[in-house]
Amino acid sequence: MNPRDDTTDARPVLLTGDRPTGRLHLGHYVGTLKNRVAMQQEFRTYLIIADLHMLTTRNSRDDVLASEQHIVDMVLDSIAAGIDPAQATFYLQSAIPEVCEINTYFQNLVTVPRLERMPSLKDMARDANKEEMPYGLLGYPVLQAADILCVRGNVVPVGKDNLAHVEVTREIARRFNHLYGDFFPVPEALVGEVPTLVGLDGGAKMSKSLDNAIFLSDDEATVRKKVRSMYTDPARTRPDIPGRLEGNPVFSYHDAFNPDRAEVDDLKARYVTGRVGDVEVKDKLAVAVNALLEPMRARRRAFAEQPGLVEQVIIDGTATVRAVVQDTVGGMRRAMGLAQVADGLARRARFRHDTKQALEAR
Amino acid sequence: MNPRDDTTDARPVLLTGDRPTGRLHLGHYVGTLKNRVAMQQEFRTYLIIADLHMLTTRNSRDDVLASEQHIVDMVLDSIAAGIDPAQATFYLQSAIPEVCEINTYFQNLVTVPRLERMPSLKDMARDANKEEMPYGLLGYPVLQAADILCVRGNVVPVGKDNLAHVEVTREIARRFNHLYGDFFPVPEALVGEVPTLVGLDGGAKMSKSLDNAIFLSDDEATVRKKVRSMYTDPARTRPDIPGRLEGNPVFSYHDAFNPDRAEVDDLKARYVTGRVGDVEVKDKLAVAVNALLEPMRARRRAFAEQPGLVEQVIIDGTATVRAVVQDTVGGMRRAMGLAQVADGLARRARFRHDTKQALEAR
Repeated sequence: MNPRDDTTDARPVLLTGDRPTGRLHLGHYVGTLKNRVAMQQEFRTYLIIADLHMLTTRNSRDDVLASEQHIVDMVLDSIAAGIDPAQATFYLQSAIPEVCEINTYFQNLVTVPRLERMPSLKDMARDANKEEMPYGLLGYPVLQAADILCVRGNVVPVGKDNLAHVEVTREIARRFNHLYGDFFPVPEALVGEVPTLVGLDGGAKMSKSLDNAIFLSDDEATVRKKVRSMYTDPARTRPDIPGRLEGNPVFSYHDAFNPDRAEVDDLKARYVTGRVGDVEVKDKLAVAVNALLEPMRARRRAFAEQPGLVEQVIIDGTATVRAVVQDTVGGMRRAMGLAQVADGLARRARFRHDTKQALEAR
Repeated sequence: MNPRDDTTDARPVLLTGDRPTGRLHLGHYVGTLKNRVAMQQEFRTYLIIADLHMLTTRNSRDDVLASEQHIVDMVLDSIAAGIDPAQATFYLQSAIPEVCEINTYFQNLVTVPRLERMPSLKDMARDANKEEMPYGLLGYPVLQAADILCVRGNVVPVGKDNLAHVEVTREIARRFNHLYGDFFPVPEALVGEVPTLVGLDGGAKMSKSLDNAIFLSDDEATVRKKVRSMYTDPARTRPDIPGRLEGNPVFSYHDAFNPDRAEVDDLKARYVTGRVGDVEVKDKLAVAVNALLEPMRARRRAFAEQPGLVEQVIIDGTATVRAVVQDTVGGMRRAMGLAQVADGLARRARFRHDTKQALEAR
């Protein structure tokens, strides 16, 4: 695997990704991963490992050091789930310092009140002490604009909640183009459902920190055990008591993961009339979930046979994206006039041989 | 002239500089330049040409393109005024992209309310429409902290008005050291008088845009002509009418530039008693100002004999500082843990030969 030249790839560019959160679970699969797998053929897909964004809220040295394993786990899980590293490109945000340069230029193209009106920020400000809002957290959408536009992204898949972020990116792209001539595409938000999966405990959300998750890396026995322990209708102490489907995570999961609709309908009908035991319902769910995860396990094994391959994928992807971003920054600097100033000084300088080198070693 | 290795220079580090404003005038000389010349032996002095800061308020392509000549004029004037490029180092901020990386890391180490409380910002917010405050302008002190700390500055000369900016830098340095271990010096503000010089028209401030300035590059005849046209006591229509010294720029300049105190005292005594003509007072001032500027003209001529030398000074200085800043960023990334994550991935990667190269081409 070697760094690709992405300039010859004519597909529209899609940017998406996550902070390095570690192992992925079924909630991630249902929420975004499945969709990414489906889109990777149509779009030139860049998958950011957003560790600079992690620093806006978790910036201890321990957080950073822990991210190494999280990064590897997250990428391996994504590949296992069907992201093809020959199609889509993973990259490590903090290893592309030119993103920070773009971020710094963009900071002048958006106003403070505009950022203060972000709905997500209002939520955070309500929760946290507004006195402690880091400047970088207010500027989160600016760094995100740098992420999207550094690869000249055309398309950004988002849930409705994050539509406002992409709107800031669009405004920054338009503002840059207005000031310096047409340079950036104005990216489109691809608004989709981002389904959330309830936790094994019936809680609102499957989440690693709530310990209510089935990981994509769980083996068959672990999945069976976790499903067996799932929360169900607590009123149903015997199989002949009619059960409720609403708020019952076991049936939410059947809906999400069991492709055998006839089986699901049959189980539901028997459940609400007290004609099926929990064990049967759960074991059939475990079979369905394991059927989903089995091809992931196979892809994971294939990768595991080549130690260091996931890391190599990240490094090659980062090199590929860095070349794209360097091209973008170079174009931005020409559009803004900064490159002409540096070139002009170099052209006028007394020792012309080492000057361009000195200023252009970038 | 070649890029210096500044790591062997044990003097405390001083950071100061300006936006690329173009030709310098006597107001700049009195306000800061004279002081810089006096300090360049004691401190390892870095003189930033702060063109990224220019972008916070003047960001059109024309502004940027115009900065090239402004940069050259400003540096040549500084050298003519006595800054020795073998002692002090000029550098172009926008040609050191690592500054943007430091800026991006620092954004998480200061809060929004802290920046909103900056006195200079409150002034601006009162003047301008607060709705239009660019995010980068609110973050001006953060970028300034990156400027000061990227060379691990120990000392920053400031007027009282800008003391608050250095205080933010000190807080950011302490915060970084607290989070990631002792790394940055906590720089000291060197608070001094920043005398302002009234304009030729008696206006509050000598300023290029008000067309009331004597430039360091003005020739002898121009100085004589400008001094002749200076505003004086308007009530004094004949030499025998007693004049007022207060608010009289001619005597402010005599105080500032005429080293012959006896002559100044004599002129003042005769002026307030109506025993001297304006022409004599002004011609003696022109002589004093030209005496100050004459050695500057000689240094300017020496430089002008070597076309491209000023540009070479900037380019070499930028290369020198860039090496210092790259060393700083490398140290920051190790302190934060980001370097270890990149190294760890490279160490684990499948094709180890080209991986370190790929991630460390920075």
